[in-house]
This record gives sequence, structure tokens and C-alpha cells, in this order.
Amino acid sequence: MRIALGIEYAGDAFLGWQRLGHGASVQAAIESALSSVADHEVAVTCAGRTDARVHARCQVAHFDSAVVRAPRAWMLGANSLLPASVAVCWVQPVAMEFHARFSAISRRYRYRILNRAARAALEHDRMAWERLPLDAERMHRAMQALLGEHDFSAFRALACQARHARRTVLQAKVRRVADEVIVDIEANAFLHHMVRNIVGSLLPIGRGERPEQWLLELLQGRDRAVAGPTAPPQGLTFIGPRYPRTFGLPEEVCA
Amino acid sequence: MRIALGIEYAGDAFLGWQRLGHGASVQAAIESALSSVADHEVAVTCAGRTDARVHARCQVAHFDSAVVRAPRAWMLGANSLLPASVAVCWVQPVAMEFHARFSAISRRYRYRILNRAARAALEHDRMAWERLPLDAERMHRAMQALLGEHDFSAFRALACQARHARRTVLQAKVRRVADEVIVDIEANAFLHHMVRNIVGSLLPIGRGERPEQWLLELLQGRDRAVAGPTAPPQGLTFIGPRYPRTFGLPEEVCA
Repeated sequence: MRIALGIEYAGDAFLGWQRLGHGASVQAAIESALSSVADHEVAVTCAGRTDARVHARCQVAHFDSAVVRAPRAWMLGANSLLPASVAVCWVQPVAMEFHARFSAISRRYRYRILNRAARAALEHDRMAWERLPLDAERMHRAMQALLGEHDFSAFRALACQARHARRTVLQAKVRRVADEVIVDIEANAFLHHMVRNIVGSLLPIGRGERPEQWLLELLQGRDRAVAGPTAPPQGLTFIGPRYPRTFGLPEEVCA
Repeated sequence: MRIALGIEYAGDAFLGWQRLGHGASVQAAIESALSSVADHEVAVTCAGRTDARVHARCQVAHFDSAVVRAPRAWMLGANSLLPASVAVCWVQPVAMEFHARFSAISRRYRYRILNRAARAALEHDRMAWERLPLDAERMHRAMQALLGEHDFSAFRALACQARHARRTVLQAKVRRVADEVIVDIEANAFLHHMVRNIVGSLLPIGRGERPEQWLLELLQGRDRAVAGPTAPPQGLTFIGPRYPRTFGLPEEVCA
């Protein structure tokens, strides 16, 4: 039987989603907890791997097990074994055709920037910080250039292993809420560091150091070397993937 | 010269505001940083002492120094020395009549409750958790009984050192935002554990286990022993005090 689960985590205590030879990973924590509940080795596959210190509101993963447990028993069992910064929010049996990564038709990310003179304290591990005033409306207008299908080589990490750099951006929004600037982006899929590299180029536009059309010029130039630096990881949260409704998953991950 | 400052902190790394013989306190961190910037011993007095694991959005403190520094220099200097979970948000010279504790005419607190089947993960150190569904509107109606001047002995910690238990509640609100229930309360002053004890008695009302008028009955009975348990500290944030406008402090701490 194939089982899907929604996972929330704070990234600060982890080297990222993926299990590595050294250090703590979300994947290893989840596999360890589910293996205890299942009483056999469990391997999970996720919708989108996150980097060190990046958070997730609703990461989705799947695993296979012949063991029969109620969804609620999987959830409560796993949550009693997981560290405080990781929780399974829902568990649902799915068709064997479901694949957390390949069935996803889009992914949503949010990037939070605290924009004030003093650095972050209460949410220092959950937000990036920009001291100089940002014009969120200017950033929003600049970001509309990303909508649609483009070659995103300008915002692709050197280490990115994707076969090609064409991605389709479905939503791109920047708004201000009090002293916080929030960047929301949804695409069919993302290149390695793509959101953080886009934000790194939006910041000089927001500060007025670069013209509004700079983001479009960078996109068209396809040259990572001339774009802005990679924005820090703690501002980034993987909101979650979206799947076709036919899989019957919770509303928050439905297209 | 007397100087006022606004301080934001995450409470999880501290035993509370007050300097103690053992362990980390926000007061000790602030005094250590300001003493380095002043180049003499600095003692600070705050608007409201917070307990272990309780957060602050805008704690206000004052100190005296003969040293002349620009407000910005105090702030940047202190923030470069403080741990990541504490930041000075503003610094302002004030009249010698100003006293962070005695000049405050009210204090505001917020209590956040994550209300869903799965425990908190992304904000596990910033929110309390209630698994059973809460009726926020019912909690809000119940809480209106607290408005005005009353004897709050029913919600007063045994260890409370206040001379009497009469306090005036100015605002009391409960609302739901998605899966979060937010309790906001403003009073002239608070007894020890007063907000957490009120929330501990609001929860059974929200779960439907107690009638709406139970909070009023508890208040009138003045018996701490029959009220609900003390709600956990990580859900509580001291939003900040309010002062008369004549002191010329930033808008967020003005009445």
C-alpha cells in the first residue's frame, strides 16, 4: 500500500531534507519514526528537497508499506517519535500511481524579509533581514517578468543537476505587511537555489539600486554571474506542492 | 541622561527577563551589551518582567548614562553584541521623570494557540497547541467578563508578590486565523501568570467542556484552586507597554 503524508518542519536544526552521511536531515528523522511505527525499514520520497535551514509548511512525501495502520495511528505514532521541530500533519492512503515528486504539478514557496533598522530577534531563524527601505510594489512589478515559461539559467545554482533550465512560473507576488516584505512564487518546478537567487536580485530593485526592468534583463541574459547573490536560507519556506484532485489529497495540496 | 529602548526577543533561550544567579537572562544580555557600548556598568529597568520561554515584541527598558552617544550608535552597538534572539529595535533619550515600569499606563499581551490534530513544528517554540477544536467566538464572548476593574485572585500565581489583586482590563479579544486561535489582552498591569492562567481557563470553554459564563464565575469566586491550569509559556508574547504621548516615544508604545 502506498501512503502519502504532509510534513511541517523548522529547517534550522537540519542540514536539509535529504539524508546525508553526516548530520541531521528531515528525511532521516521521518524514516526513523515511520520505520518504528511500521516495524520495518521505510524509505520516503518527497515532493521537493529543501536546503539546510529552509523550512516547510507542507512538504509531501510517500512511502510503501504492507502493514495496515489507521492514518491517525501513523500520524500520532510518528509525531510521538519525531523531534519538536518536525511534525506529520496528515496521512492518507493513495493509489500506487501517486508519486510525491512526479505527480506534483506545481510547487509554492514563500520568502520572508524583515525590513527595518534593527535585525530580526523574535523570528531570527525564520526571516531574512534588509536594513534599507524596500519598495514592495516595485519588486512586485519587476517580478511579473518571470510569469510563464522561460529559461531560468540566470537564477540557477552552479551545482544544479536538472537536465534543462526551462520552468513555468504560475504566480509571482510581492507584498508588504507592516515591516515585513513577503515574496510568494509558484512554478511547475524549481531549479536549485532558484527562489533564493530571484530574491537576491529583487532586493537591489526594492532598494532602488537597480531599475525595475533589471529582473527581465537578467532573465533574458541567462547569465548567473551578473545576477544578485543568493538570499539567505532562513527566509525561505516551502509552502507545498499541488497535485491533481483525482488523488483525493487534502485541499491545501490540491490544484 | 535617561535613555529608553525597545527590545524584541525570543524567550526560548532564556530563563526569563530577570537577571538570576544562574542561567541566561534577557536583562543580563542587555546590560552586558549596553555596558560595553557605554564603557561603564549599565543597569536597566523594564516595563514588565517576562517568565522563562515567554517572548517580547516590544519590551521597554530604561537606563541612565552620562556618556553621549547617538541613539543609532547605542542600537547598532548593542545589536552587534547581543545574541541572535535579542535585538534593540529603537533607542530614545527621555526625560528623567520617565520610568519604564511606573510610567506605563497599560501592557498588552498576545497568546497564540495552534488548533489542529498535529502538534506544532515550524513554530513549536512560539505557540501552544490544542488538539481538540476550539470555538474562538465562544472564548471571545466569555472573555468579555474580564473587562473593567476586578479582583483577579482567581488568575493569580501563588508566588505573585503584588500588594493586591485589583487590575483593570482594557481590551480582551479572541479570534481565529486559519488553524490559529489568538488571544489579545490589555490591562493597566498584570499579576504573575495572569494571562497564562486566564488562557488555561478559556481553553475548557473553547472545547465546550465548560459553560460560557464559567470565566465570570471563576473571576467572582476569586479562588485560584478551582480555575484552569496555567497555559504553557511558549504561546505568550509581551506585545509591549503604552506610555503617555508626552514622553515622545515611538508610536507603537504610545497610548
